[in-house]
Amino acid sequence: MLDFFFRPKVVAVMGVDGRRRCPAAEIVANLCRGGFEGLILPLGQGKECSGVEVAEDLAAHRGSLDLAVIASTPQRLLADLELALDARVRAVVVCTELTPGESNAALAVELASRCAQRGARLLGPSSLGIINTGHKLNASLLPGPLRPGSVAIVSQSNGVGAALLDAISGAASGVSTLVCLGDRADLTEGELLPAMAADTQTRVVACYLENIDAGERFVKSCEAVTQDKPLVILKSGVTELGAKTARLHLGRTAGADIAYAAAFKRAGVVRAEHFEELLDFCFVLSTQPLPAGQRIGLVTNAGGAAIMAADAVEDSGSTLSQDDESVKNPWDLEAGAEPERYAEAISQMLRSPSLDAVVVIHAPDHEVRPDEAAKAIAEVCRKSSKPVTAAFLGGSALAEARRLLEAAGIPAFCGPERAVRALRAVCEYSAWKRRPPRIVTRFPVNRRRVERILLRQQRTGHFDVGELQAKEVLAAYGFAVPQGQVCSTAEEAVEIAERIGFPVALKVISQDIVRKADYGGYKLHLSTPSDVRDAFDLMVLRILNKAPELRLEGVYVEKMCHGSQEVIVGMQHDPHFGPMLMFGVGGTYVETMEDVAFHLAPISAVEAMQMLRSTRSFSMLADRGDSGLNLPAIAEALQRVSQLATDFPQISRIDINPLIVGPAPAPAIAVDAEILLSRQEEP
Amino acid sequence: MLDFFFRPKVVAVMGVDGRRRCPAAEIVANLCRGGFEGLILPLGQGKECSGVEVAEDLAAHRGSLDLAVIASTPQRLLADLELALDARVRAVVVCTELTPGESNAALAVELASRCAQRGARLLGPSSLGIINTGHKLNASLLPGPLRPGSVAIVSQSNGVGAALLDAISGAASGVSTLVCLGDRADLTEGELLPAMAADTQTRVVACYLENIDAGERFVKSCEAVTQDKPLVILKSGVTELGAKTARLHLGRTAGADIAYAAAFKRAGVVRAEHFEELLDFCFVLSTQPLPAGQRIGLVTNAGGAAIMAADAVEDSGSTLSQDDESVKNPWDLEAGAEPERYAEAISQMLRSPSLDAVVVIHAPDHEVRPDEAAKAIAEVCRKSSKPVTAAFLGGSALAEARRLLEAAGIPAFCGPERAVRALRAVCEYSAWKRRPPRIVTRFPVNRRRVERILLRQQRTGHFDVGELQAKEVLAAYGFAVPQGQVCSTAEEAVEIAERIGFPVALKVISQDIVRKADYGGYKLHLSTPSDVRDAFDLMVLRILNKAPELRLEGVYVEKMCHGSQEVIVGMQHDPHFGPMLMFGVGGTYVETMEDVAFHLAPISAVEAMQMLRSTRSFSMLADRGDSGLNLPAIAEALQRVSQLATDFPQISRIDINPLIVGPAPAPAIAVDAEILLSRQEEP
Repeated sequence: MLDFFFRPKVVAVMGVDGRRRCPAAEIVANLCRGGFEGLILPLGQGKECSGVEVAEDLAAHRGSLDLAVIASTPQRLLADLELALDARVRAVVVCTELTPGESNAALAVELASRCAQRGARLLGPSSLGIINTGHKLNASLLPGPLRPGSVAIVSQSNGVGAALLDAISGAASGVSTLVCLGDRADLTEGELLPAMAADTQTRVVACYLENIDAGERFVKSCEAVTQDKPLVILKSGVTELGAKTARLHLGRTAGADIAYAAAFKRAGVVRAEHFEELLDFCFVLSTQPLPAGQRIGLVTNAGGAAIMAADAVEDSGSTLSQDDESVKNPWDLEAGAEPERYAEAISQMLRSPSLDAVVVIHAPDHEVRPDEAAKAIAEVCRKSSKPVTAAFLGGSALAEARRLLEAAGIPAFCGPERAVRALRAVCEYSAWKRRPPRIVTRFPVNRRRVERILLRQQRTGHFDVGELQAKEVLAAYGFAVPQGQVCSTAEEAVEIAERIGFPVALKVISQDIVRKADYGGYKLHLSTPSDVRDAFDLMVLRILNKAPELRLEGVYVEKMCHGSQEVIVGMQHDPHFGPMLMFGVGGTYVETMEDVAFHLAPISAVEAMQMLRSTRSFSMLADRGDSGLNLPAIAEALQRVSQLATDFPQISRIDINPLIVGPAPAPAIAVDAEILLSRQEEP
Repeated sequence: MLDFFFRPKVVAVMGVDGRRRCPAAEIVANLCRGGFEGLILPLGQGKECSGVEVAEDLAAHRGSLDLAVIASTPQRLLADLELALDARVRAVVVCTELTPGESNAALAVELASRCAQRGARLLGPSSLGIINTGHKLNASLLPGPLRPGSVAIVSQSNGVGAALLDAISGAASGVSTLVCLGDRADLTEGELLPAMAADTQTRVVACYLENIDAGERFVKSCEAVTQDKPLVILKSGVTELGAKTARLHLGRTAGADIAYAAAFKRAGVVRAEHFEELLDFCFVLSTQPLPAGQRIGLVTNAGGAAIMAADAVEDSGSTLSQDDESVKNPWDLEAGAEPERYAEAISQMLRSPSLDAVVVIHAPDHEVRPDEAAKAIAEVCRKSSKPVTAAFLGGSALAEARRLLEAAGIPAFCGPERAVRALRAVCEYSAWKRRPPRIVTRFPVNRRRVERILLRQQRTGHFDVGELQAKEVLAAYGFAVPQGQVCSTAEEAVEIAERIGFPVALKVISQDIVRKADYGGYKLHLSTPSDVRDAFDLMVLRILNKAPELRLEGVYVEKMCHGSQEVIVGMQHDPHFGPMLMFGVGGTYVETMEDVAFHLAPISAVEAMQMLRSTRSFSMLADRGDSGLNLPAIAEALQRVSQLATDFPQISRIDINPLIVGPAPAPAIAVDAEILLSRQEEP
């Protein structure tokens, strides 16, 4: 269906005004300049446009019109759309720029709804248009020239899309297709990303996003791309200031960056941190093979540049392998290194089984012509099965050498660090392609019990599930929770405490109380019968003095738990991406440090262990290997929370804080827990 | 004196071989090509070299020879040096490349010592040479062309130096002088940096370093530059891998990066993180005025690009001020923005009292020619008193616009983030220039007492000053330490405990015991007389059972201290930069997080407070404002440690862990302390 956008045979361009320069006329001109081989039908005022006769109407093309590009004034927009729909057009691009505002938002909705009624799809409004170089189609406001290439571009911003087109067209890879999303009244990145990846010319998909509209299917759309081809996304609005700027620009919030990060990771998206990195990543991904690992070999004629590159290797999480004794790494050819010595060293590195990628560095050398070195490097890297990037340090004296390398398909940069960092794209995507299969464990649980508990809560309007019920839910999903029982008198409390063993905690139970601390509603570390008796009486007395209207259901007597480590395990329902799991080592310091890991549910056992490892404080836990901290128990807790959140989408938040972990094989214990339900109807 | 290097009148080039291509002949050729206006004297084989007659000897120039550039074979090196020294040369550059190795290291020492004996200074060996464009001097192996400019380059690496020369020569700023340090047998960056800054043509000094040789005076040398001119340093070998690579390259360790970071900060050095950033920073510093603050204004024709830029603004610690209601910020001119609208918006931003710098962003726009926009921008920014950078997003279509801006002295980049980050150089240097005067408080202390304690320790060979003595030292320097007394029987211990008040700690005192924990040599939280009695007897019994040969001097009874917050305050003597102060919030988590601040001693009160603020965990302390944590007491502790370390250079390490801090005005208490002395003779 989207083929009508990318490979149309008959294209109408509406809104032409033959009497003056206008956007529609520019689109006609661009179509002609691009060498479009189908039929172009300009519509509007005047006799002709770029040498093409302006059509009277579309009556003659009813049923055969593939694409209508509308660049009329906002006033004419609906009338022109009707003309196209009457001709049974299948694909509509609205290039008319609608400034943000309520009436234009309503107009955009109207455009989409009319298209939907008549079975047409809509790109825009406010889109710069669409380009498919392989089909010689430039149905956009951007002048060519069109040159076939291998990078497909999807951009939410027209300006950034135009910049990417210009930059990538001029590079060795070139552009296959470009789509500017505009206001996304109908088509979004969710459908367009897989459609563009389906194009056989495309080797890499590059995407610029400020927010997403198709959250639910976004991850699936990205996965549809990444299973075949690399997808690089630059997502702006990452910082608070950036998000605020995006809000001003978009009129709404862009969503939490941690959720985007989790979504990208899940879907194997390579994330570019800034504009130039997006270009670098596209260049490397479109020209270089995928490496088998992250072991990088460095060849250089300047020791200093190799040190800079080594710094960048460590920063990017790769290594400089020295396992192969026949290959020095870094291999410093030293000043005066002739082109043949570069070729020999690189050739050995490309053959070495202990290296996965090569970075070639050249600093200006009065004895060697840089373009000779570049030629020798290009020659030896031809048909290399390992990715290679180059850094030729300097300005104009090395520009020709860099150009030669780029023409030979080897990304060449000015700085050694950039040559190393650009490899991150192939290393990351390759690691994702080689990942083990995702097997999500389904634990046997008592789902019916949780259904009953949650239904009761929702019916009585208690969206904040009390601690006691939250622990019942967790217990039904296989969590160990501390032993305990509700009582209504001090004597009962003492009896329970003596049965379950000291020390105990007392916690007041009342659906009227959300934060127990506000009412002195809990007391910990009670070690004797008299402590328990006193605490019970004092707690009830104080609460009723303070708020006599509260309905107390009793007091919970709970065994105190001790373990070597407190951690936090939780889930938060992200508005775009659904349940997002959270893990952090406990304690106030870690909250300050924001040393917390996130992952979209459902999660596999392997991913849960990776989540633990991805926090910096984890190294501390892992160091305590002698105490044998039961790390798999934390990973299992994450998987069980994942199952719970996936089974019950009405849960908006789960907080197990702390989850107490001791030495294996003791289970992790959910000592305190909170569950929130969303206030919407069940989905 | 160094003037003979930079502005010589008579230059000898030694090692010429007229019969074949050789380095010395290249140097002669480069001198000639550069248009050197003094006398060139080639020496060696053959009749002539680049049209200059080869001299028989230097007899005729005895006393008037300013500079000898020696590029002989290693075998001829000493003989040629003797020739030059016999002619009473004042400055010697040895370009001969000496491969690393013991015999060559000895040769370098010999070269330096002969020069020193005869009153000459030496650059090199293994230096690429020296360039001074203002003096038309190219006494280097690098071919020109020489074009006068404003950036002085000091590089430890020949390759990186050559790359910087090429890149900066081609940019708007150009190069004033270049020095490649080579093996630094005599002259180091310590003398050369201030010498190059003294050049009136030079506006910015750019430096590439792998390690430093002149640690003690390095900070002073940098300060000598930065008080007049900005100094940008790229220091490689930052990561473990980078440092290892540097070690392979240099044959020794480069020193701890934290120490370099502290030294750079103290001296107002702008640190570049990578090669391209060094170029960007030089460009901005050499062309732009210093801003009065960090409030950045953004003008753009593409909302997306402004979001990217805003992300970069937050990352770089600057702000987007919106205090001026008449100036939108970011100011989105939207697609179709004509050059005049750019000019108008920029002009308002340059006039606004609430903005300190401006970033102009342009994405390709089919309605506007980018070079027209560039011209309008260049015109309105002419004579601006605020720094301006630009990002013209895209490839070849915007290259001419970027070139126009650069020619007008406005740094123009491809990515918006890079345009923002480049401003960090002027913002940082300006903040350093505007810093309050450094006033280091000298507290009244009992210095004599510390002298006596340390002397006694050194005489008896106890370099690890015991806890008791360490606390005496700290007390003499005005620290509050817990009350306590030594005892030799259990009854005495109880008496002391009853006098100073429970709870107490017992700590064994023995110069034979370094780590008390290894012997069960301390016991905390003793709350009753019988606890103290039992602990005393058990401790002594166990230690003497375990190691009967140990000499016990007694047991220290100390009052236990409680406070709201534990912090770590310390000092470590860095081999390059001397005493380096350390601050961190206590607890194992923080150690894992490496959330620790460093500062070179001596430290002022303002700097000590900045040190606290620069840790991320500080926000947590500051949040506890209601408890009124005595932060100035921590800052004072840092200043007192600073004074102690400066007064006694023989102290190699001080660790106060924990220093316990409570609500003001209670003093901070040094609960545990360790002092190490260096094993060298007193300086």
